[in-house]
Amino acid sequence: MGKEKVVLAYSGGLDTSVAIKWLEDQGYSVVACCLDVGEGKDLNFIKEKALTVGAVSSHVIDAKEEFANDYALIALQSHALYEGKYPLVSALSRPLIAQKLVEVAEKEGAVAVAHGCTGKGNDQVRFEVSIQALNPNLKVLAPVREWGWSREEEIEYAKQHGVPIPINLDSPFSIDQNLWGRSCECGVLEDPWAAPPEEAYDLTQSLENAPDVADIVEIEFKQGVPVALNGTEYSLSDLILKLNDLAGKHGVGRIDHVENRLVGIKSREIYECPGAITLLKAHKELEDLTLVKEVAHFKPIIGKKMTEVIYDGLWFSPLTKALVAFLKETQKHVTGTVRVKLFKGHAIVEGRKSPYSLYDEKLATYTAEDEFDHSSAVGFINLWGLPTKVQSMVQSKKVTV
Amino acid sequence: MGKEKVVLAYSGGLDTSVAIKWLEDQGYSVVACCLDVGEGKDLNFIKEKALTVGAVSSHVIDAKEEFANDYALIALQSHALYEGKYPLVSALSRPLIAQKLVEVAEKEGAVAVAHGCTGKGNDQVRFEVSIQALNPNLKVLAPVREWGWSREEEIEYAKQHGVPIPINLDSPFSIDQNLWGRSCECGVLEDPWAAPPEEAYDLTQSLENAPDVADIVEIEFKQGVPVALNGTEYSLSDLILKLNDLAGKHGVGRIDHVENRLVGIKSREIYECPGAITLLKAHKELEDLTLVKEVAHFKPIIGKKMTEVIYDGLWFSPLTKALVAFLKETQKHVTGTVRVKLFKGHAIVEGRKSPYSLYDEKLATYTAEDEFDHSSAVGFINLWGLPTKVQSMVQSKKVTV
Amino acid sequence: MGKEKVVLAYSGGLDTSVAIKWLEDQGYSVVACCLDVGEGKDLNFIKEKALTVGAVSSHVIDAKEEFANDYALIALQSHALYEGKYPLVSALSRPLIAQKLVEVAEKEGAVAVAHGCTGKGNDQVRFEVSIQALNPNLKVLAPVREWGWSREEEIEYAKQHGVPIPINLDSPFSIDQNLWGRSCECGVLEDPWAAPPEEAYDLTQSLENAPDVADIVEIEFKQGVPVALNGTEYSLSDLILKLNDLAGKHGVGRIDHVENRLVGIKSREIYECPGAITLLKAHKELEDLTLVKEVAHFKPIIGKKMTEVIYDGLWFSPLTKALVAFLKETQKHVTGTVRVKLFKGHAIVEGRKSPYSLYDEKLATYTAEDEFDHSSAVGFINLWGLPTKVQSMVQSKKVTV
Amino acid sequence: MGKEKVVLAYSGGLDTSVAIKWLEDQGYSVVACCLDVGEGKDLNFIKEKALTVGAVSSHVIDAKEEFANDYALIALQSHALYEGKYPLVSALSRPLIAQKLVEVAEKEGAVAVAHGCTGKGNDQVRFEVSIQALNPNLKVLAPVREWGWSREEEIEYAKQHGVPIPINLDSPFSIDQNLWGRSCECGVLEDPWAAPPEEAYDLTQSLENAPDVADIVEIEFKQGVPVALNGTEYSLSDLILKLNDLAGKHGVGRIDHVENRLVGIKSREIYECPGAITLLKAHKELEDLTLVKEVAHFKPIIGKKMTEVIYDGLWFSPLTKALVAFLKETQKHVTGTVRVKLFKGHAIVEGRKSPYSLYDEKLATYTAEDEFDHSSAVGFINLWGLPTKVQSMVQSKKVTV
Repeated sequence: MGKEKVVLAYSGGLDTSVAIKWLEDQGYSVVACCLDVGEGKDLNFIKEKALTVGAVSSHVIDAKEEFANDYALIALQSHALYEGKYPLVSALSRPLIAQKLVEVAEKEGAVAVAHGCTGKGNDQVRFEVSIQALNPNLKVLAPVREWGWSREEEIEYAKQHGVPIPINLDSPFSIDQNLWGRSCECGVLEDPWAAPPEEAYDLTQSLENAPDVADIVEIEFKQGVPVALNGTEYSLSDLILKLNDLAGKHGVGRIDHVENRLVGIKSREIYECPGAITLLKAHKELEDLTLVKEVAHFKPIIGKKMTEVIYDGLWFSPLTKALVAFLKETQKHVTGTVRVKLFKGHAIVEGRKSPYSLYDEKLATYTAEDEFDHSSAVGFINLWGLPTKVQSMVQSKKVTV
Repeated sequence: MGKEKVVLAYSGGLDTSVAIKWLEDQGYSVVACCLDVGEGKDLNFIKEKALTVGAVSSHVIDAKEEFANDYALIALQSHALYEGKYPLVSALSRPLIAQKLVEVAEKEGAVAVAHGCTGKGNDQVRFEVSIQALNPNLKVLAPVREWGWSREEEIEYAKQHGVPIPINLDSPFSIDQNLWGRSCECGVLEDPWAAPPEEAYDLTQSLENAPDVADIVEIEFKQGVPVALNGTEYSLSDLILKLNDLAGKHGVGRIDHVENRLVGIKSREIYECPGAITLLKAHKELEDLTLVKEVAHFKPIIGKKMTEVIYDGLWFSPLTKALVAFLKETQKHVTGTVRVKLFKGHAIVEGRKSPYSLYDEKLATYTAEDEFDHSSAVGFINLWGLPTKVQSMVQSKKVTV
Repeated sequence: MGKEKVVLAYSGGLDTSVAIKWLEDQGYSVVACCLDVGEGKDLNFIKEKALTVGAVSSHVIDAKEEFANDYALIALQSHALYEGKYPLVSALSRPLIAQKLVEVAEKEGAVAVAHGCTGKGNDQVRFEVSIQALNPNLKVLAPVREWGWSREEEIEYAKQHGVPIPINLDSPFSIDQNLWGRSCECGVLEDPWAAPPEEAYDLTQSLENAPDVADIVEIEFKQGVPVALNGTEYSLSDLILKLNDLAGKHGVGRIDHVENRLVGIKSREIYECPGAITLLKAHKELEDLTLVKEVAHFKPIIGKKMTEVIYDGLWFSPLTKALVAFLKETQKHVTGTVRVKLFKGHAIVEGRKSPYSLYDEKLATYTAEDEFDHSSAVGFINLWGLPTKVQSMVQSKKVTV
Repeated sequence: MGKEKVVLAYSGGLDTSVAIKWLEDQGYSVVACCLDVGEGKDLNFIKEKALTVGAVSSHVIDAKEEFANDYALIALQSHALYEGKYPLVSALSRPLIAQKLVEVAEKEGAVAVAHGCTGKGNDQVRFEVSIQALNPNLKVLAPVREWGWSREEEIEYAKQHGVPIPINLDSPFSIDQNLWGRSCECGVLEDPWAAPPEEAYDLTQSLENAPDVADIVEIEFKQGVPVALNGTEYSLSDLILKLNDLAGKHGVGRIDHVENRLVGIKSREIYECPGAITLLKAHKELEDLTLVKEVAHFKPIIGKKMTEVIYDGLWFSPLTKALVAFLKETQKHVTGTVRVKLFKGHAIVEGRKSPYSLYDEKLATYTAEDEFDHSSAVGFINLWGLPTKVQSMVQSKKVTV
């Protein structure tokens, strides 16, 4: 009788390569599975490497467009910034990766799924909660968390088992990337008083070296979805990647964040999200023009909860569907064009227009065109201020005589 | 028997100068009252001008430090940004001005207070609700709203009544300023697709002309209050004004906002808040280091409500006191130093440190110093994901066999 | 050329009968329009009366089922209780009435719509905002608010113009009713220290006279909609009316509320909502069984906002649609049966069951059947309490040695 | 050298009596510590029993008044009802018990603290997080969770070690009680379709046997604190216990709740809180009279968060202090008298009065005394409805011609 199969989320790096061997040692046949969610991986190379190291089969999946439409777009329309800063890079991709792992596991008849996370990060939670939600019959293994080796011990094991050691192994940083951005932690970044060194960045130019001439880009949205740049239509994943280049060149989207992890500690992370930050700014401005006040003021509560749900690994909770249903309703008239100036690390919205604009120049103007009824203000103020007035009279002893 | 007195919020400009005459026409003796809340007015000149135009007496009050400590500081600690963008410039000063007007009215035995607002702005609401709360016996007059003249009619009246016409009268913009920032509306800004022209700005350098060399500033906070810059202590108003200069020189703090007014319309406003934006960023970073997660995640709800209360003119509501009581409790350990790089329109926090830092390098590190208990994650994930797992089993028919 | 038409919301009472004449005096042809939203009106009688008094035509509309499905159901699924107490009786019917008035106006070619509200209630706001949203070209008239007569003056006018004076005119109360409940204000109720007199109630038995034997009713829900009572299916309006009888007989649903009106004052209102309160309790219990924790904890925020939107007259805001989209997503598994004991003013849920129940006896039990993994708690507590522990060590000087 | 000491939260029941022996087996000297938080324990008996079973010393503490003032009062002023139903009985006492255990441990020089909770409840979390926050140097032991015995195994161990077996051991229920209420779980209650049997209740009369004559009680509050019943002043703990008797006699305060535990499961609990429910109703009514609208509408958000913080075991988080600071500010004018009718399971507020009442009869009345300015409504409605009107015109194509 054959060995039981495990599907491993395989990145091609040292940890998951060692994990192939380690899982074999535990008696499993290892099926490797690698996704491209926009980090620009060489999927063919990784596919082969997995087999070389010892996987019995190796799946690679280009999930860029699915990631853009089903995940990044929700983050965009939610204005998702965890703790006001982090646009949810890794947190966004985990549920999609989990879903693909489960699909492969079901197809391959595997009994388990494995990921390469350690025991102190958020991603282990996101993977495991997602996998359990999608198929509670699957076991989840976390080799790196279980073996608990130091870097030296891991390398020793790799050498003994013929696992190739990557050349860039002495990079001080731990990196994750997809089309919504890039995260970087560890090394000197662990001192929150130290400025991040330039080598922590990869997608963005430094302000010092950013061009002296701005790029102006017009972004067109249809019902909250970015559909074109400067008049040219793109698929969403292409549009984001294009903006990563354009805005990255101008140094847009560097973020330095001391954040509260789900597992109870604070950590310091560096993010680069040139495309995401540009789109977030542009989308917000179009909403400012097209959303009625009460929607504009309540929607951030939905966005904050959506952000927490994603960060906390609860993507497959029914709450996500309900929040998305709210969001989608709000996007029906978020259609129009936003003109953004990319310059010296800024994505500056200079102009916005929409066929559904609620900005009414005849109501807003202070010229002779004014159609606003000024006399209404008197009655409005009387009733608006009435509770405060009565409170003051009764409770602050400002009694009229 | 003498005429009844009215205390007029006097700015020295055309509207309130004409209002002196107009109020006289209505049978009042006019007492002028002018505050400096950091806009750098020549108070002596304005005091004299009021008397020249016809006021029976003229009060000028330097309220900068009071404004900084009792108003701007609350906005800072609330991270108050209306609709995520506007740091509440004018909205913040209105209650303080109202309070001073009422104090002068009570001292002078006046029966009424007057302001120079039109009928379509937010400030009329803020003034009138505040005045009613502080002394409901005082009448409130709004000459500009009542007379309803065009610009030409107003100038004609001014000429006939010997009111001096300012030279810069043909400025296309309507401006308000205090130490927390400067607002600018009207003119070409009424087209939200048009980029703001450079002449709309006054406190900030353009990105194009900003220096090529950064300034690094260390801001020291004690219990949430900024107390020193680069090791030198300042009063809060001086510190903010100093930062306005420093950060303004680098083009920090330009904001272009299509906002929802309290009176039911959208308007487009330009703000410049170099000091405010720099302090808001620095303060948030120090909180990221020193607030425990559950405080960090709930405090924005308090801040959003505080922002709405201020924007909506309800400063003197008892709600303000309760929100401030919450805020003050959260600031007890927001003590430390933030290093900010001012460069090309950015206030970039490069480092932060605090004796009360909750960032624990031994818990956060991925080095051998790690003191975090990795094995705890397994139990945590089991219980954290349990509701989602059960929901999926029961309601998504992913039943285990 | 004929006179311009106005469509009047006609109730058959004195105010709106006088309004027919008064609107004629203003030069209009009056089209009467009366809805039954569950208050049990004699629509034929009212239709004739309008014509008798002077309307040029008279429309009556049975809108009970539409009101139940499109309005009361939203209130139910929102658990809408304004200020924790008031289940939105009148607030719910106003937008539906406005919609029907606008439809009739468009069909009749009317230029205006009129309602019988005074100037200090909430309903004038709800009517006028709704009508403007549905057809901003229609003028809105408010005869009662405009004429400003005392009761005596109104009766005098009625007598002079041949408007019949109702016999129950000396009722001290002002009443509104629909199938979601009945409201009662004025008279002795204006003293909040006075207990409501028994004659203020109509739909409910007093506790003193309620039966000594309980009724047990099983309410069946499908996807959040009550569909059957004790095994018999009903249309929603019939089901609510049936429960009004059943629960009213046992004195369920009396509410005595000092509430904050939208127009700035506090008022004291008496409500009777036997069916609504019974359904609200039953529906909540079924949600307790079938909603996953994070949905259960966030949904009240949606419900509170929905409640405010309805109370504040903003039903036709796009926010309503977005809130409803959220709600509907949450109801997909709110299917099952709730057993309610109606007794002495109580609707006591004694049992609840659902094919989608997330209550898992094997996880919850303390018997030998227990399948919960107790050891997971240790790791969970370690991480759950970690932020508080670090905070205490650093900021409360409880430093370990 | 002597054995290390552990302080055990001792109740006198079987579990914690066995724990004394078990902890001895682990090599500890056991210090017993028992609190009375209003459950009416015979502290002397328990003190002696601990020593008899084997504790080296035995502390008993009457903490009723401290519990009332520092814990129950916060719950009251927060209107704390977890998931809208549960007034936080056990959740409230855990932090106080933890604090006393830590104090005794520090006085006795103990190295550890122990509690009798199992591994699937909320209380283990509340105890352990609290203890870690108060003294992170103390170890926390959970004998019952660790030994993992069945009921039979535990009794066997007890017999072998001479631990007396209580007579009421075959009670099917697990009970906890303090002056804020009583909780009951297990047994037949584990079936959520089954009605709770009468023997699950102890503090409250059944509706069937409740008296046919109501009691009317006047409750006096000073700044949000209940200080007197029917004109007689009581300490807070006495007042609550008195109300438990009075309201319990009338069957007030039975709650049947399927709730979401912190540890990821749903459980079904029965609570009896006659005094708490009566006070919660009365306090809310006095707030309805004395809080200005914007405070009344925002305070529930604070209350909900306070409730979650307490339920989730985070009492000693700095968030608690900030929430309490907010609360206390809101209570300054919550002074007055509430008249409550206790009858057939109801605590019906019939009247409320306050020297700080914001209910203004002259503004609210529909009589000739009316001082409300009806004409203000027109302007108010114009501006209030303006955003919806513009939205409708632009986005629903209801364009005026």
